[in-house]
Amino acid sequence: MRIRVINPNTTQSMTDLVEAAARNVAGPDVTIEAVTSGCGPASIEGHYDDAMACIGLLEEIRKGEQDGVDAYVIACFGDPGLDAARELARGPVLGIAEAAMRAATFVATGFSVVTTLSRTVVIAEHLVTRYGVHGHCRAVRATDIAVLDLENPESCAYQKILDECRRALAEDRCGAIVLGCAGMADLCERLSKELGVPVIDGVSAAVVMAEALVRMGLNTSKHGDYARPLPKSYQGILAPFAPRE
Amino acid sequence: MRIRVINPNTTQSMTDLVEAAARNVAGPDVTIEAVTSGCGPASIEGHYDDAMACIGLLEEIRKGEQDGVDAYVIACFGDPGLDAARELARGPVLGIAEAAMRAATFVATGFSVVTTLSRTVVIAEHLVTRYGVHGHCRAVRATDIAVLDLENPESCAYQKILDECRRALAEDRCGAIVLGCAGMADLCERLSKELGVPVIDGVSAAVVMAEALVRMGLNTSKHGDYARPLPKSYQGILAPFAPRE
Amino acid sequence: MRIRVINPNTTQSMTDLVEAAARNVAGPDVTIEAVTSGCGPASIEGHYDDAMACIGLLEEIRKGEQDGVDAYVIACFGDPGLDAARELARGPVLGIAEAAMRAATFVATGFSVVTTLSRTVVIAEHLVTRYGVHGHCRAVRATDIAVLDLENPESCAYQKILDECRRALAEDRCGAIVLGCAGMADLCERLSKELGVPVIDGVSAAVVMAEALVRMGLNTSKHGDYARPLPKSYQGILAPFAPRE
Amino acid sequence: MRIRVINPNTTQSMTDLVEAAARNVAGPDVTIEAVTSGCGPASIEGHYDDAMACIGLLEEIRKGEQDGVDAYVIACFGDPGLDAARELARGPVLGIAEAAMRAATFVATGFSVVTTLSRTVVIAEHLVTRYGVHGHCRAVRATDIAVLDLENPESCAYQKILDECRRALAEDRCGAIVLGCAGMADLCERLSKELGVPVIDGVSAAVVMAEALVRMGLNTSKHGDYARPLPKSYQGILAPFAPRE
Amino acid sequence: MRIRVINPNTTQSMTDLVEAAARNVAGPDVTIEAVTSGCGPASIEGHYDDAMACIGLLEEIRKGEQDGVDAYVIACFGDPGLDAARELARGPVLGIAEAAMRAATFVATGFSVVTTLSRTVVIAEHLVTRYGVHGHCRAVRATDIAVLDLENPESCAYQKILDECRRALAEDRCGAIVLGCAGMADLCERLSKELGVPVIDGVSAAVVMAEALVRMGLNTSKHGDYARPLPKSYQGILAPFAPRE
Amino acid sequence: MRIRVINPNTTQSMTDLVEAAARNVAGPDVTIEAVTSGCGPASIEGHYDDAMACIGLLEEIRKGEQDGVDAYVIACFGDPGLDAARELARGPVLGIAEAAMRAATFVATGFSVVTTLSRTVVIAEHLVTRYGVHGHCRAVRATDIAVLDLENPESCAYQKILDECRRALAEDRCGAIVLGCAGMADLCERLSKELGVPVIDGVSAAVVMAEALVRMGLNTSKHGDYARPLPKSYQGILAPFAPRE
Repeated sequence: MRIRVINPNTTQSMTDLVEAAARNVAGPDVTIEAVTSGCGPASIEGHYDDAMACIGLLEEIRKGEQDGVDAYVIACFGDPGLDAARELARGPVLGIAEAAMRAATFVATGFSVVTTLSRTVVIAEHLVTRYGVHGHCRAVRATDIAVLDLENPESCAYQKILDECRRALAEDRCGAIVLGCAGMADLCERLSKELGVPVIDGVSAAVVMAEALVRMGLNTSKHGDYARPLPKSYQGILAPFAPRE
Repeated sequence: MRIRVINPNTTQSMTDLVEAAARNVAGPDVTIEAVTSGCGPASIEGHYDDAMACIGLLEEIRKGEQDGVDAYVIACFGDPGLDAARELARGPVLGIAEAAMRAATFVATGFSVVTTLSRTVVIAEHLVTRYGVHGHCRAVRATDIAVLDLENPESCAYQKILDECRRALAEDRCGAIVLGCAGMADLCERLSKELGVPVIDGVSAAVVMAEALVRMGLNTSKHGDYARPLPKSYQGILAPFAPRE
Repeated sequence: MRIRVINPNTTQSMTDLVEAAARNVAGPDVTIEAVTSGCGPASIEGHYDDAMACIGLLEEIRKGEQDGVDAYVIACFGDPGLDAARELARGPVLGIAEAAMRAATFVATGFSVVTTLSRTVVIAEHLVTRYGVHGHCRAVRATDIAVLDLENPESCAYQKILDECRRALAEDRCGAIVLGCAGMADLCERLSKELGVPVIDGVSAAVVMAEALVRMGLNTSKHGDYARPLPKSYQGILAPFAPRE
Repeated sequence: MRIRVINPNTTQSMTDLVEAAARNVAGPDVTIEAVTSGCGPASIEGHYDDAMACIGLLEEIRKGEQDGVDAYVIACFGDPGLDAARELARGPVLGIAEAAMRAATFVATGFSVVTTLSRTVVIAEHLVTRYGVHGHCRAVRATDIAVLDLENPESCAYQKILDECRRALAEDRCGAIVLGCAGMADLCERLSKELGVPVIDGVSAAVVMAEALVRMGLNTSKHGDYARPLPKSYQGILAPFAPRE
Repeated sequence: MRIRVINPNTTQSMTDLVEAAARNVAGPDVTIEAVTSGCGPASIEGHYDDAMACIGLLEEIRKGEQDGVDAYVIACFGDPGLDAARELARGPVLGIAEAAMRAATFVATGFSVVTTLSRTVVIAEHLVTRYGVHGHCRAVRATDIAVLDLENPESCAYQKILDECRRALAEDRCGAIVLGCAGMADLCERLSKELGVPVIDGVSAAVVMAEALVRMGLNTSKHGDYARPLPKSYQGILAPFAPRE
Repeated sequence: MRIRVINPNTTQSMTDLVEAAARNVAGPDVTIEAVTSGCGPASIEGHYDDAMACIGLLEEIRKGEQDGVDAYVIACFGDPGLDAARELARGPVLGIAEAAMRAATFVATGFSVVTTLSRTVVIAEHLVTRYGVHGHCRAVRATDIAVLDLENPESCAYQKILDECRRALAEDRCGAIVLGCAGMADLCERLSKELGVPVIDGVSAAVVMAEALVRMGLNTSKHGDYARPLPKSYQGILAPFAPRE
């Protein structure tokens, strides 16, 4: 089974981090193929970045379809281009936010999201509503760490995130933490040990759930809204992206 | 006052149709600048097209900002790229779906949407939830006419749409109809006369509401989630789209 | 185009204030006709006042219909008698709360309402639910200034409102403020400049949106729930209010 | 214990019908005082009538307070003026719609409302949302019988209502029927026998629940939103309605 | 009329307390029969206890049916086994949480629940959603008093509850308090006097409402979801609980 | 890894069927231990059965904890005793309804549930609300086949289910089917092939998702609401079920 984990931003070091997290949980018969978007933003920290990131993401889905990939993971907590990707793909496509949030509902009555910049909080909140976890998500908390600073030792990212998790557990009446950025994947195990509660990294969650769906024999439904895009003419720099038969 | 009406698909004839509808309602001191996306799909009929259409749309917003445009209208019923556009723009940005749906709530207790392909119904439904008009929207009905066939006389589009509106008024307990595609703008007046109820075209609604907001002195809030995108590096074919200071 | 702006309370000075705000935004071909209710409460600060204010309001709508007015604005943040007014009126009727809240959703992902007395907060909250803006409205905050004290210099109304707005922007994660009383209309521009975010006055919002709807050729739907009231006998002091053919 | 059952329309025969239903269920130590509004519409069949009916209703509440009444029932399925009445009253005030709907949730997982004119359906639907019974109310069905025709033998009201109830039980997957008009109160027992399911008349429900609340020693809370209306000046024909200390 | 009040835990002293509260409000023609579950937990303080308590509860319902009881009250704020009990019972079955919460909505625009252990808060919150009182319930607050410590003078239960109520009234913008445990029933009157707002005990509320429903002639609907359980074979220690014809 | 799949009813043949479905999808390093409840109903077809089934279910969880099982699946579409089981268990506990519904949201924009008896529809609907999939679940449809008749060739179960699925796909605008009973697990693959859309069996979904959570290192949170039940005395036939330290 081949699962393609797509980093929708162009930062290779984040892809490496995400790949490690994916490999850590993948089953014995699963091949993880981590790829970096070929165009678009270096990090995704708002609606504009999110929209722009879809192009490179969808290109990777298209390539994956040519390569016969079994399932995809979109490794960005905004789950950008999820519905568009599902139109293209035969196999399942999972966003890390949806996978993490659903996983949390299996192990706690309430969870809090701890994420990066304040301005991304509303994106996470829209997903909370979209995924129907409004009854479980107690809060979405920001640490005001830029995505690319997560890997910068001088940003004290781990400590800030740990402190925010502690506040969440004390104040939000939650039983689990969902990490709100793919770039936090490598901190998951350490946070979990230190906090003594389930801490959920969406990359891991999406990889194991993608594997689960493939094992069940489930593919994206092509009856209705996720049917393949209708063939049509595309212009300009996006001409190569036109859907074909 | 300059209002830029953006057709996010690349079909000039649709831009012309939309421009006529916009000019028909614009106030005496308003200049309508209708522009056609320079890249992307010829029509938008699904999630993939929707995602792809954002690039050309955002490019037009960017150009509009350079030109000092006062407000924007996104002339596609999926309201693609709305939040991203608001990050870029100083002045207000309105999607035709949100404008049409809100307008409907001012004149009826319930409305039905009559749109094009069945597969787009779920996109409209997501917007109904997103815009909080779930209590007003009685149904989203499809006519299964392709967007570009609206202008094709052989498709009998007007008759099909009229029939669907009649069914809606008879069955859905609604008092108004919202037309679910920019390409239906030219049919609005005729349908309204024939049906005897308010029929709302989103292009008209968005243009007059954009003018209204500018007249009030309202601009997109730059405090919080719609602040300008953070400057960062963009790669590949999207390198020119990188947000600058 | 004639827009009748109705003050549902009997305080002429508030009508004057509201009239000034309306004139400030009305388009060049719009005549603003500001009228004061002929009976009922001097100010509206609770459910009882709200119910009682409907009589004078509906009388003004009735007179407007005789005078061939094109649209109406109900200049009270409780939007009293809105549905009843729409049954009577041919043209559109807008409440200032619904207009302000919808305007806010066009320019920010979240807004807070800053209003007068604590006891009116629940009325605003009911409207938030009714208008489907629950996903956008972050909070409804009270300043505990009586409606008629807004114009009293000794009440330090402006400072109190400014401070509450500041708290809202700091704590509620909102990007815009909605002023929760018609009597705050004259403070809007100053607050906006001082806070640097969109501040929305419902009187302005309703006037420009009413104009927008008329420009679109939209009238209140007479198919269904907003059909004219059925003719019937009325008794007692309300006998003159009986709906006729 | 004195319970005042107020008919907010001016039709004495409806008051008599309602009084009989109330007396039928009242406890042994309860005095039912049925009163007819002294002004306003002969029947309530829309938003305008609803708003106009509040005056006479609130006058009866005021008189009841002077007379030391223990609780009130508003005998109209639109529950007009409910919040305003609660500001005035010391004891509990119940609307027949809220009482009926809540009673239904105690005895069935789902109920359907069968009411009079189609145009009143939306009023009932707003109450369903307001009272939080959206999860229980399967449908609101109209019989298109005018309120005052319920007592007219030529209208075949009983048969029409019976048929609509049958359709509801067959199609809506409900286990109980809520009668959507005070004027249906006398049909309740017969319908219940014939259908073999709980049929709920709001007049009975509100009377017994009002008695229940008084027995518990519960009065309307005067802390917060239902505090007595603030004293203020009222003008014109409503001058006598000014709230006093 | 015979109302059986069932204590679903096995602690007789709690049954006595509950019985006194029930007798205090029951009408003159009502016989209160308070019974203690014959098996299961000594107190109910979590989901496990809640599930386990259903057995003894349902046994008491079964016995009540044999004895021809007219209505039942489940005297535990988790309303355990409510739907199952309604399948068994002919007459109405009320849980004290649903009765208390509905009673609160009749007398205040908002209420707060003050309950025992923190871990039970989520159970109350699920009921708030289930009963559709989310628009009225401002908060669910815990006092961290174990259920069986309510009767222990050394726990200072009254003072802790009073303090929590005060905080609720000051901070939650509520007008009434709902006591979140049957074991608080005896504190109700005293709290109400001291706080000056409606304080609602679910035992009282459920008893008077059960009486109300019986007076109306309402029984649990046997059409649909609350029909008697289908006869079938049961194994093991639960063999005696098999539903019969 | 050991996953215990619990059949909460006492019918061994259903356990065998469920075991086969579980084995079919389990990963290479997973041991499936299928167990049958030792007491309670032969099948679960209503609220009463559901409540009664919890005892045997929780006994199996308790035994599993003694045996050091890694995760549990509750193989009944009512997900009975889910929260109680999570209080007891260290590892994750999944209900088949929650797993199936979440799986559906990963592969389609909308799904319909096809289940057994009409009277169980409301149980599924409550779970739809509880799991926040209201935006995805288009309908819950019944086939009126008794649970134990699924395995009876004379009931033509397969054909009835197939027909109902076809109606769902034609009428509900869904892209996937969720099978509403553990006893349909063996029909899943055949239905999927014949219908050409994803058909989801909850047993498979829950097994693979349980495995996924264990692979992620996630256990049920013991911080807060799912903490182990507090030790206390239990009486009567349930005395052996008392929670210990």
